[in-house]
Amino acid sequence: MHQRPVSFRLKNVPASPIRKLVPFAVAAKKEGVGVYHLNIGDPDIKTPEVMINALKTWDRNPISYEQSQGNPAFLTSLKTYYERLGFSFVDEKHIQVTTGGSEAISMAIFATCNPGDEIIVFEPFYANYNSFAAVNGITLVPIITELSNGFHLPDREVIEKKISGKTKAILICTPNNPTGTVYSKQEMDMLVSIAKDHGLFFLSDEVYREFCYEGKKHMSLFSYMEAIPNQAVVLDSLSKRYSICGARLGCLVSLNEEIMAGVLRMAQGRLSSGLIDQIMASKLTEVPGSYTEQVRKEYQMRRDVLFQELSSIDGVELPPKPEGAFYAVVGLPVVDAEDFCTFLLTKFRDNNETVMLAPAAGFYATPNKGRNEVRIAYVLNADAIKRSVEIIKKALISYNI
Amino acid sequence: MHQRPVSFRLKNVPASPIRKLVPFAVAAKKEGVGVYHLNIGDPDIKTPEVMINALKTWDRNPISYEQSQGNPAFLTSLKTYYERLGFSFVDEKHIQVTTGGSEAISMAIFATCNPGDEIIVFEPFYANYNSFAAVNGITLVPIITELSNGFHLPDREVIEKKISGKTKAILICTPNNPTGTVYSKQEMDMLVSIAKDHGLFFLSDEVYREFCYEGKKHMSLFSYMEAIPNQAVVLDSLSKRYSICGARLGCLVSLNEEIMAGVLRMAQGRLSSGLIDQIMASKLTEVPGSYTEQVRKEYQMRRDVLFQELSSIDGVELPPKPEGAFYAVVGLPVVDAEDFCTFLLTKFRDNNETVMLAPAAGFYATPNKGRNEVRIAYVLNADAIKRSVEIIKKALISYNI
Repeated sequence: MHQRPVSFRLKNVPASPIRKLVPFAVAAKKEGVGVYHLNIGDPDIKTPEVMINALKTWDRNPISYEQSQGNPAFLTSLKTYYERLGFSFVDEKHIQVTTGGSEAISMAIFATCNPGDEIIVFEPFYANYNSFAAVNGITLVPIITELSNGFHLPDREVIEKKISGKTKAILICTPNNPTGTVYSKQEMDMLVSIAKDHGLFFLSDEVYREFCYEGKKHMSLFSYMEAIPNQAVVLDSLSKRYSICGARLGCLVSLNEEIMAGVLRMAQGRLSSGLIDQIMASKLTEVPGSYTEQVRKEYQMRRDVLFQELSSIDGVELPPKPEGAFYAVVGLPVVDAEDFCTFLLTKFRDNNETVMLAPAAGFYATPNKGRNEVRIAYVLNADAIKRSVEIIKKALISYNI
Repeated sequence: MHQRPVSFRLKNVPASPIRKLVPFAVAAKKEGVGVYHLNIGDPDIKTPEVMINALKTWDRNPISYEQSQGNPAFLTSLKTYYERLGFSFVDEKHIQVTTGGSEAISMAIFATCNPGDEIIVFEPFYANYNSFAAVNGITLVPIITELSNGFHLPDREVIEKKISGKTKAILICTPNNPTGTVYSKQEMDMLVSIAKDHGLFFLSDEVYREFCYEGKKHMSLFSYMEAIPNQAVVLDSLSKRYSICGARLGCLVSLNEEIMAGVLRMAQGRLSSGLIDQIMASKLTEVPGSYTEQVRKEYQMRRDVLFQELSSIDGVELPPKPEGAFYAVVGLPVVDAEDFCTFLLTKFRDNNETVMLAPAAGFYATPNKGRNEVRIAYVLNADAIKRSVEIIKKALISYNI
């Protein structure tokens, strides 16, 4: 008999726009070309020593399963972390440890939406939301934000117009990936009010919480959680905060008991998150405040260097300086940024070096939006950023001839 | 407005029958009661030193993202492992590293089935298949196997009768969890022939491959993979093989290019599996063959002790000794094994000790099947197993009075 086909939904899972050009980068490196990676939020900042030491002094054998909700010491350290932020109402029972922030996002979508349901997002948005939407069979309903005003939110009416009978949730990311935008108190007030009025879940991805610049205060959904206890779900990750992207640890936090019981059942299906990563990360309460402060300063400086250097390139369209995270979406003087990014990796070399960028089109759901834009992750040191922008500048000249 | 409800599918995710009694065990331990854990396949066998040393000599900082397909060194070590088993056609490109065998199962189901599609399984089956089926919106179609003949497969006609237009795959586990059954060459020949004749995907969960006793040879789907290259998918895990359940590493292996490209896109969505776990596990090629041999002997001895001891209890229904893995499904002289398991944890103490077992009903999809059965994981040393069976024996007397 003829072989039955793979699922149609497998075909619908998009390639990561952050990672789809990886084969070109790998090929370039094989040729001996140096590649500056501004395409992915994988920082060069050191992981805190107290975490690395947890590996070096490892004394458990065997490496056994952990509890499905999470390692008890790690759960307690997360509770302490939220308490120090001023959210002392968060208890261990409100926290589900996840395998990366990725799993937290995926679980939250699954928990709140049936197949065919809709989630409001603001585009450009974190590209992997598309992947989780495809896997979970739900539709992202994008609302455009604009480069010119730093990708801040549109008026309430614009948002409410997109809410339908199928809408189950609003999903935001603040500080934002890919734009670096930090939503103001007014913006958060508005979204909470919309969620309340329409009975929507409010999913807030806050993995860059600590990265706010020039004294900008982060407005967390935690500040509203007790007001909308059954609607608010915070999605978190340790990857950026402690520069442990490879540790695959995040969490989902909610006061909604039905959601917490459900995601625990989901977590039981995959048994547990990694034991070693959790033991290491449970040291987070011992990471000195100066670590976070230094990292924040370092990123602010890098952002300033990036914008300073980019402003010297003719035709580059810069938004107002992003207030947080370590990304910026900028317009390039090209028609198709993906083609330019491919050109950088496959054809352009300056002193045998090139740069990898993420085409921004993958961060939009609306066709043809952001085609000339790229996302730049300023995760390299200032010298590397300067050199990268120099390469981009030369490449643009060469590309546009 | 009234709050919109959580998704109906969240409600459909079942609690793990292996883990649902955990709160009772935690409460017992808080009272100072010793609990023998025969409920979960979390071995007391030591992780190989060469892996533990990879942690102790850790020299990477920061802990960065790994490639979505997997750490290159780890992929190569997996290729070498399969080569040593005699399957030299397996290349790195045929391997997707997964976060535990759990993710491999979930990805395989997603990749092959649309919502509403069916997968043939043989019950009792690994309970978390229910969880992955619920999350992926597919239906498991169970075919009963019987304790009396060691849970071996029924005749071809019985299986073919269950194949419908919606059937997309056959999913097996050999050596089996929860029964310990190792399918013979005749059984594997038959299943491959059925998959061929009906154009079905053949998903084979082989995480206990090394655990076959008394010289019983494991028949892997790898032996048929080149004959049905687009249909065969092997699901694997390192958890049991190297006693690193907490490391959350497995892989999905297939020659089907469409499946491999699709699961890579899924993997990109969640960025990568854990870096530390992969670096540690890439040492698998340095684990001496004597490690596996000793572990196998240890389990065989434990199995023999378990069956010897259990046979002394009146009314216990034993299958023929399982040929592999480290589980057995046995019938107890009770009506409702879950109630008895709860009794053990909440009420029964012998010398302030008790035993945790997994009620087998959760391993069946057919209502009321296996209600008097439990799954016993013989993952503790012989003395602990003897003592556990002694406790079970006394508890049965107390329970049945």
